[in-house]
Amino acid sequence: MTIQSMNELFHHELQDIYYAENQIAKSLSEMMDQATDAALVDNFEHHLEDTHEQIKRLEQVFRALGQSPKGVTCQAILGLIEESQETLREIEDERVRDAAILASAQAMERYEITRYGTLVAWADQLGRTIGADQTALGGLEIVDLLQLTLDEEKNQDSRLTALAESRINRLAA
Amino acid sequence: MTIQSMNELFHHELQDIYYAENQIAKSLSEMMDQATDAALVDNFEHHLEDTHEQIKRLEQVFRALGQSPKGVTCQAILGLIEESQETLREIEDERVRDAAILASAQAMERYEITRYGTLVAWADQLGRTIGADQTALGGLEIVDLLQLTLDEEKNQDSRLTALAESRINRLAA
Repeated sequence: MTIQSMNELFHHELQDIYYAENQIAKSLSEMMDQATDAALVDNFEHHLEDTHEQIKRLEQVFRALGQSPKGVTCQAILGLIEESQETLREIEDERVRDAAILASAQAMERYEITRYGTLVAWADQLGRTIGADQTALGGLEIVDLLQLTLDEEKNQDSRLTALAESRINRLAA
Repeated sequence: MTIQSMNELFHHELQDIYYAENQIAKSLSEMMDQATDAALVDNFEHHLEDTHEQIKRLEQVFRALGQSPKGVTCQAILGLIEESQETLREIEDERVRDAAILASAQAMERYEITRYGTLVAWADQLGRTIGADQTALGGLEIVDLLQLTLDEEKNQDSRLTALAESRINRLAA
């Protein structure tokens, strides 16, 4: 038994999403190479930049908690990526593949939204007991930093939905 | 290359969520046994009944498409379940474990919402070209049946959020 409290569970989930974000950054680059639709490639390019910022933000949270940034293997994101790769290997048609790539990217996005949502709720509940060094957070609270990323992920999710509905699914059908 | 069209990609995703729903039914039963909070156990009990209905609904969709209900291994749900079990094994405190169980259940729920959302969008785009036998659907369209499940999953997600915020996270902190 290594998780003894909500503070430790919070820290464990932080390590989980840190690992996941790094895997997603790799996966996004790969999907960017496989995608053919210019609007989809452009979306991934921008979101890859956001992802790098989100990783830095997590590192800031780790430091504020007096810990080194470190991931724990996240089986969920590995499963999502493996499933995506398996499906994409079976598709030859570029437009059908774009639709599958978008669906995969959205599944990863939703995973992040879920985890950041949980982290925000837990950070909010734990409040000051979380023991963060305020100076390392530049006047913000941990919950604010996580909420910033959560909002970005939700925006990206909406952009993917709009892209699917306005363009990618129609072209593939 | 075994997926040649959007109709085939749709069918592949249908098999994916069919496998996932069956895994989730098993996982829900296990989490119900591990949870201690009465409201959480009660929620899982009700959602397990919904899950069995949702599985039957998918079987109805398969039959309308002239196919036998069949799953394909869904690495994503296996990853989510494995990650959940690994984390729960590390927690002794019942209230902290309840918070972790709720977070895991919500991650699975969000996976389903994502996949059903994609299936609804694709079914909507494919329309009549999907070639469903209308008599097997009792006057509905495939998209209506999938939307019904999607709405149930979203309601369950909202119930889990309310339970976390009103009770489970507070008790665990």
